[in-house]
Order: sequence, then C-alpha cells, then structure tokens
Amino acid sequence: MTDEAEGAPSRRDMFRMIGVMGGASAMYMAMAELGHAETTDAFRGPAKLSRPPPGASVLILGSGVAGMVAAMEMRDAGYKVQVLEYQDRPGGRNWSLYGGDTFTELGGATQHVQFDPGIYLNPGPWRIPYHHQGIHHYAARVGVQMEPFMQINFNAYVHSTKAYGGKPKRYREVQADFQGHVAELLGKSAQQGALDQAVSKEDREVLMEALRSWGALDGNFQYTKSLAASNRRGFAKDVGGGLSAVPVPSDPDPLSQVLNGRLWTAIAQMNDHMHQYSIFQPKGGMGQIGKAMGRELGPLIQYNSKVVDIHQDAKGVTVTYVDTKTGGPPRTATADWCICTIPLPVLSQIPMNVGAPLQAAINHMGYHPSMKVGLQFKRRFWEQDEQIYGGITYTDQPNVSVGYPNYDYFSRGKGMLLGAYVSTPESYAYAAMPPEQRIKETLHWVSQIHPQAVAEYECGAAVAWHRVPWILGCASTWTEETRAKHYDNLCAIDGRIVLAGEHASYIGGWQEGAVTSATDAIKRIHQRAMGA
Amino acid sequence: MTDEAEGAPSRRDMFRMIGVMGGASAMYMAMAELGHAETTDAFRGPAKLSRPPPGASVLILGSGVAGMVAAMEMRDAGYKVQVLEYQDRPGGRNWSLYGGDTFTELGGATQHVQFDPGIYLNPGPWRIPYHHQGIHHYAARVGVQMEPFMQINFNAYVHSTKAYGGKPKRYREVQADFQGHVAELLGKSAQQGALDQAVSKEDREVLMEALRSWGALDGNFQYTKSLAASNRRGFAKDVGGGLSAVPVPSDPDPLSQVLNGRLWTAIAQMNDHMHQYSIFQPKGGMGQIGKAMGRELGPLIQYNSKVVDIHQDAKGVTVTYVDTKTGGPPRTATADWCICTIPLPVLSQIPMNVGAPLQAAINHMGYHPSMKVGLQFKRRFWEQDEQIYGGITYTDQPNVSVGYPNYDYFSRGKGMLLGAYVSTPESYAYAAMPPEQRIKETLHWVSQIHPQAVAEYECGAAVAWHRVPWILGCASTWTEETRAKHYDNLCAIDGRIVLAGEHASYIGGWQEGAVTSATDAIKRIHQRAMGA
Repeated sequence: MTDEAEGAPSRRDMFRMIGVMGGASAMYMAMAELGHAETTDAFRGPAKLSRPPPGASVLILGSGVAGMVAAMEMRDAGYKVQVLEYQDRPGGRNWSLYGGDTFTELGGATQHVQFDPGIYLNPGPWRIPYHHQGIHHYAARVGVQMEPFMQINFNAYVHSTKAYGGKPKRYREVQADFQGHVAELLGKSAQQGALDQAVSKEDREVLMEALRSWGALDGNFQYTKSLAASNRRGFAKDVGGGLSAVPVPSDPDPLSQVLNGRLWTAIAQMNDHMHQYSIFQPKGGMGQIGKAMGRELGPLIQYNSKVVDIHQDAKGVTVTYVDTKTGGPPRTATADWCICTIPLPVLSQIPMNVGAPLQAAINHMGYHPSMKVGLQFKRRFWEQDEQIYGGITYTDQPNVSVGYPNYDYFSRGKGMLLGAYVSTPESYAYAAMPPEQRIKETLHWVSQIHPQAVAEYECGAAVAWHRVPWILGCASTWTEETRAKHYDNLCAIDGRIVLAGEHASYIGGWQEGAVTSATDAIKRIHQRAMGA
Repeated sequence: MTDEAEGAPSRRDMFRMIGVMGGASAMYMAMAELGHAETTDAFRGPAKLSRPPPGASVLILGSGVAGMVAAMEMRDAGYKVQVLEYQDRPGGRNWSLYGGDTFTELGGATQHVQFDPGIYLNPGPWRIPYHHQGIHHYAARVGVQMEPFMQINFNAYVHSTKAYGGKPKRYREVQADFQGHVAELLGKSAQQGALDQAVSKEDREVLMEALRSWGALDGNFQYTKSLAASNRRGFAKDVGGGLSAVPVPSDPDPLSQVLNGRLWTAIAQMNDHMHQYSIFQPKGGMGQIGKAMGRELGPLIQYNSKVVDIHQDAKGVTVTYVDTKTGGPPRTATADWCICTIPLPVLSQIPMNVGAPLQAAINHMGYHPSMKVGLQFKRRFWEQDEQIYGGITYTDQPNVSVGYPNYDYFSRGKGMLLGAYVSTPESYAYAAMPPEQRIKETLHWVSQIHPQAVAEYECGAAVAWHRVPWILGCASTWTEETRAKHYDNLCAIDGRIVLAGEHASYIGGWQEGAVTSATDAIKRIHQRAMGA
C-alpha cells in the first residue's frame, strides 16, 4: 500500500513525524517539497510591507477593489492614506442594486430600483472562482461570507434560434449527445485501425473501455437510445417507485444536428478554468464586499470627489478635485506617492504629467461594452415549472444569457432573473435605448425561452456600462499586440505614480485582476518609498 | 427572429395572450403542448386521494421517508393513521449524527459522538439531485431549506496508487487531458479520412471546429502545453496582476498515462444524471428532513416499537410489537390496511402471512454494504492549504472517497471530512472492526492524500450499515434477473398489505425511491379501500 522501498520510513510515517514536530506550516512545506501540495495561484498572500519611513503618505484615487485593497495594506503598514472617490459609495464595479437604490446614468435617465427586499442585481462582477484567492482573502478579511455560484446547471438550457426548431435544449442533452457521438466516432476509428500509429495496442484497449464508459455507449460502442445514454442526457420518463416505476429512455439527437446546432460552444466554455467548480458569490450580493471594505476604511475615503488634475514633482503628488455634492472651488490633496485606480476611459481625460509611454498606454486602451438587466418576477417559475435551480441559460438571441438566482432555492417567494448579460456589440444598441426599453426588449427575449415571464413580470433594472459616468465602459480589453506594446508601460511606476486595477492585470474584467495588480503595485511603490 | 409563417401570430404573442387570459397554469399547459416545458420526473406531485370510507384505517410500519410520506398523505386524506417505529427517532436512513448523539451498533459497540456544534455526519443519504422532485417536495413541505451540494469540484483530487507515481491529480487536470487527447485523436482520424463514411464533408468541418474549442487544441489541432490547455487544466503559475502577472502554462500528461491511470472512471461517473448540477443537501444535515417530518406527524408515530408478527385476514391487519424501552408483554395494533416499509433483511425475519410470491421477493433481496466515517479536524486544511471547497476526491484506496463539507466555506473554524464512503466489499472488513479501528484506518488513508490530517485530527464517528440493528445493510440491490422475477411481486398488494421503500423502486438507495414508491403504494391501497 506504500510506494517506498522496504525498510525506509513510509511517506505516511514521515508526514506524521513532521506533523507532530513542526505543526501545520512545517507539514505544508514538506508537502510542497514532495510535490504533494501546489501553490499555483497568482495571489500568494497579502503584501508584507515593512515599516515605511516616518510620515510617508499615499494618495489613492478610486475606492474600487484595487484602491481599497491598496488602502488597507498601506494603512496597516503605517502609511498615511487618503482615498478620493468620485461616487457617493465605495466598491466601484463591485456593486449591487437593491430596492430603494437610485442610479442616474449618462444622458440623465434615472432608475429608482423597485426590487423587493432580498432581491438584487449585480451589474458588474457576479461570481468568484475558487482560484481567485486574492479577492477571497479580502472578502473573508472584511467578514463577507460566500455561497456557491451555480455555474454549470445541466438542466438549464442552451438555445439557438437556428437549431432544434428554435426550441431550447437542456444542457445535459447537448453535453451527453456531443460526448456520446465523439466517443462513438473515435471508437469506430480505433476499430478500423485509424489510430494504429498514434496509439499502442494496449492503450487502444483501455481507450475503448474509457470511451464506452465516458460516452455512455452501448455494448456495440454505439451512442444509441438506451438507459445508459438516458442516464446522461435524461429520460423521457424518469425512473420511479412502485408499479409505475419503469423508466422510458429518451432519443439522442443525431450527430449532424448536434454539430450544426453549434450549442457545443456553450458546453466548451463551461469547462474553462474561470468557470470551474467550486465557484462562489457573496451572500447578499457582490456589492457586500465593497460595502464592507468601505466600512473598514471609514473616514479614509472621501466620497463625491471628482479628480480634475494629477500633478507630480520631485517632492510628491498633488491631486486637484471638485466636491460634486457641495461644489465650491477645486481643492487639492497631496502625498508622497499616488496609486491611481481610475478607469482608463476617465483617466485619459484627466491632465496628468506622466511620461509618454504611460500616457500612450492609457490612451490606447479600449473598454469592452456590457449590459445587464435584472427582472423581478412574482414567482420562481423557472424552478417550479422547469426545475432550473440556479445556473445560466445560453442563447443566440441578443440577450445572450439568462441567469437564475443562486440562493433561496425552492422558496415560494419572488425571484429575479438576470434577463440579459450582453458583452457583444449589441451592448451599444442597448446602451442607446432608455432603460425601460432595455428592460422591455430583455423581457421579450426571455419570454422566448420562458413564456411565463410576461405574465409574471413585476419590475426591472438595466445597467449599460458605457453610460456609467465613472467608467464609460465595462472592463479593459487587451490584445496580444497592445499587451506587447503597452502593458509593462501601463504597470511601471512613473515618478511617484503607479496605476492599479483590473486594467493593469492579465485577468481583465475580474476582481482578482484588481487585487493582484494592487498587491503588485504597492510592493513596488513601497520599495521606492524605502529608497530601494 | 421567429420561426412562424408570415401573418400568423408569433409564438411570443400567443404566449402573451394565454398568459394574460389564463394565468400561470394555462400558460404552463400551453408550453407543454408546444414541447416547450417538460415533465419527465417520476414524481408528478403528491397523491391526490379522495375522501376514504368513514373510519378507514392504516397501520404504517417504519417511520423512514417512505413511511412518513405515506402517513402524511393518508392522514391528510382522512385515514386513521398509526406508525410503529423500532428506533427512538424518526427518519430511518435519513439520519445525521451530531455531537452529543449516541449510537450503539450490533455487537454492542457504542459511539458517543464528540463533534463540535454545527458539524455532522450523514451516515446514509447526503445529496438530493434536482430531479428528485418528490423528496424536494416533502422537504419543502416540512420547512427544510436546501443548499448546493458540490458534486463536481475541479480542484478536488482523483487518486490512484498505481498511476502518476501514486500522487493525487486534480480533477481538472485529468478531465482536460482526457478530453484534449480524445479531441486530438478524433481530429487526426478526421483529417486522415477515417470518418469519411460516417460524417459528411460539411459536418466534418464543424466537427473540427468543435473539437478544437471543446478539447482546447492548438492551431494544429494538437493538445499541447499551451495557454489554451492550461485554461482548462490549470496553470503552473496562474495569471495575475501588475508586473508579476505573466502566466506559466502547465504540462499536460501523455495519453498513455491518462488512459492507464484509469482516473477517467471518476470523470465519467461525475456526468451521471444522479450527479448532475444542480444537486442539493439540506441545511444542517440530511437528518433535518426526518426530524421535521417526525415533528409534523407528532403522536401518530409510536417509537421503540419492535414488530414481531404481521397477520392479516379478511377484515384487517394485526401487528404484534414489543416496546423495547418499557418491555412488558407484546402489544397489538390493528387497522384495515398495512403499509410496510421495514427493510427487507429485517422483514424477512418477521412472520407475516403473505403469499409465496411476495415472501420469495422479500427473501431474495440482497442489500449492498456501505460504511461511512466522519473525521473532525482542528482546521479546514483542505481549503486553506489546497483550495478545495466542497466536493469529493476519489481514490483507489480502501476508503474510496473523501468528501469535503459543502457549507461554511472559507470559515476559520473547524471542519469535518467524510473520510471514507465505502460501498465495495471492503465494507465487510470495515464492519468487522470496532468503530475506533475503522476511524484509525480511515485517517491513515486520508493522510495519504492529505498529510495534514494526522496532526489536525480531533475525533470521528463510523457507521457500518451491516451493523445497524434496524436494517442490517445499506440499501437494496436489484439485478436485471431479480428485477424480472421479483419486482412486480414485491410491489403488488398482497391482501391488505403493501410494501414501500427504496427497495420497492427503480431508484435503489436514493430517498426519491422511497417517496415515489410510497406515493405509488398509497394510491393503490386507496383504490382498494374505495372498493375499486
């Protein structure tokens, strides 16, 4: 039962000894040594900053996740910290809309959110993969609890207006059919000798066995109407009890339809590392993280402060800002160092005396569009009528996806659907509509998948990120080309200024990008402050 | 955007009209009509029983899920209901062990469970698939809330002592490698013309595109060390932020190792209908359902009642039982009808005057073994050191699997692992050991995967179902042969007696089998009672 040479202490014995002698961290080091544990995450714990020079100060622009992570760590290290925030709340794109909230977008349209208590829309981020250890660390630090996000729901739909007669298919049906047909085809190839060069005879036998099990093939290695296939794709009538128990298998769809329906694109992307289980959402809405971080920082954040100029010289940084609430003449704030997390579409419009490489990087960045619509319904018909508990339906309609609430499962109360989450160019068309029109269109698209939606609809909210005043877009978009040309320049310290935020990361559009970029930026600024 | 003929009302318009005119249920009927909604579940709502004849009575043997579902429905219909239960608690195999609980198994070993508050072991069922609508219905009826069960965790392990040098692999690595190699092989076959007979030229082009996306292949349709492959199997160093952001791809394992490691068996079974997301567990432990049902039935259940004889005649059923707590002479209970849910290994030892076919069915049933061990640890090292939040690790060691707690994620407190869930013949060996030995062995096997376990261990509990006095096994085992010969006889009403429970279903070992068998049995008994 052990793989050690006879006489040598077994691995188990060694771990026991280490565990007793050195406690958990010695144990962990030993595990890592033996290749038993892995630390592949980009976030490897908070920046451990030494004591800064007496009186050292930092000015942080923006109280989104990047700004607040930087503020907490630098304050804890001993820096004098001030945060300027354009909004009247902390969090930035870490944001949930609740009943009673008001939101005015560019163009002046104001939405008074009517959701019932407990119901919310996350206009920005809505899920956190397990491997985003940075944002998990800070969420836990400020006391926000996590609950599972239902990323893959086998009973949700994948839907193409051009396939399967335009009817939504269950994810499980398409996944099983694709996998089954692939297994059958490969099995045929193997049996016909087509793999003889690529696969040894011994491996081929194991491969056939694997394909049969994994593809739910029958005794002849075919993917057919069978209990085995139904045990993947679902039954026409499920197994039951007593004398009415006998199951009825369902009919797999033919290969050609499965391929040309192109619904495998949704299946494929569900396997992405960013979407893999376990994946989480904060209880009560993503915005709980921003709120809690804001409480943690308290008076260090100065809200309603619109930055209009950023100026640095040999001695420090001076930021000029306007109080958008009380008005009055511009004020200034100064510090030794500045961590600027202002989104680039806004920052590119603010005068700032940095070098040409950084300014070029700022000016070249495109932000992709995004639009989200939340719809509140009288009852959770997707659960009660269609047995869809959480998860996401994908469609080729303009609304792109329908997200089901990942909490209060089986409740008899009301519920909210994310009726649209659009990152395609159609976002611009949605952004051009008034909010109520966005909601109306979304309800239409949702009703093509869930006809109940029309009768059960109560109220909605719609956020088109290109109309959000403090960002003017959803998230940064890097290409291989812009990355090569501008990324290092965007991240490099320019005099006394460094940028942080998801745009200064390889994880664009995810909060982990904000956290890891902030962690990296403060380490480097701290080195400078220490004279290194 | 619609698939209707010009001039005809669009499907959307029709649904809107129906929605406005007929409300939700008319809408739902219309949806079903159009093939838009599906009702494939075995449970189609509770039995709707008409008013029984005045004074009609039923005696229910066993207060497990089947017995209590039958009791609730027949009481609600108007039957006089009495339930006899051997145990001192309701629920049967719906059972959780908490700190302070005591459990004495056959052979006399008593365990005094030491778990901290909030920590529990489900010795029996521990998860409920979304399509088990029957048990979900009754759980909701008695007010038990559900939370997601993390069935597939891409960051949990699959482990073979005979593969990958005996080191555990992450599920994501094996899943991505298997899928990638399968896609590459099939792509090669297609390019070499091996699929020309099976797949049309047009379909082949879509197939190649699908394989590339689904298998994470590179531009040459090969599964190689690449960002694409790492975006499935995980990176050697994950993407990050700032100047330390660049990811490092990981090395896929070669096909031969992936095949011969045989870890694809775990991957394959994760796709089974019973294991598909969404899947749930009751908050606070599976036993909450049994407890709540017991509260709902209150004094209708008579605990500590050991049935010793079941006798029927033309007028009714008389059951003789012994009060195991107070002792004294045997007592009798009578009723018009009897629904017997006593597990068959016990029932086969109780005299009962039924026909030969039913008696043969009872006597022939084998029950498969099962053993579960829960281990409490000082800290949640699987989360803190290894980023495993919920889910299951599979191993070829005797403990078979390690289950991680699917609640209190990221908490700094203690936690419990299901250290062993054994349904293999090794269960018998475990059952032969005293409980503390089972725990010790389990801790050993767990420490081969999680070396921290030894130092962090606090206490444990172990249930081997063949030593549980009121069942003597885990759950029924049907074969195709026994099903053909005995199933209908087991379920058929014999005079005034009918059997119910997971053994009288096609969903052996799942609570849904108990619910649907009870629903089916009470409908048939009711028909008899109504003289049909």
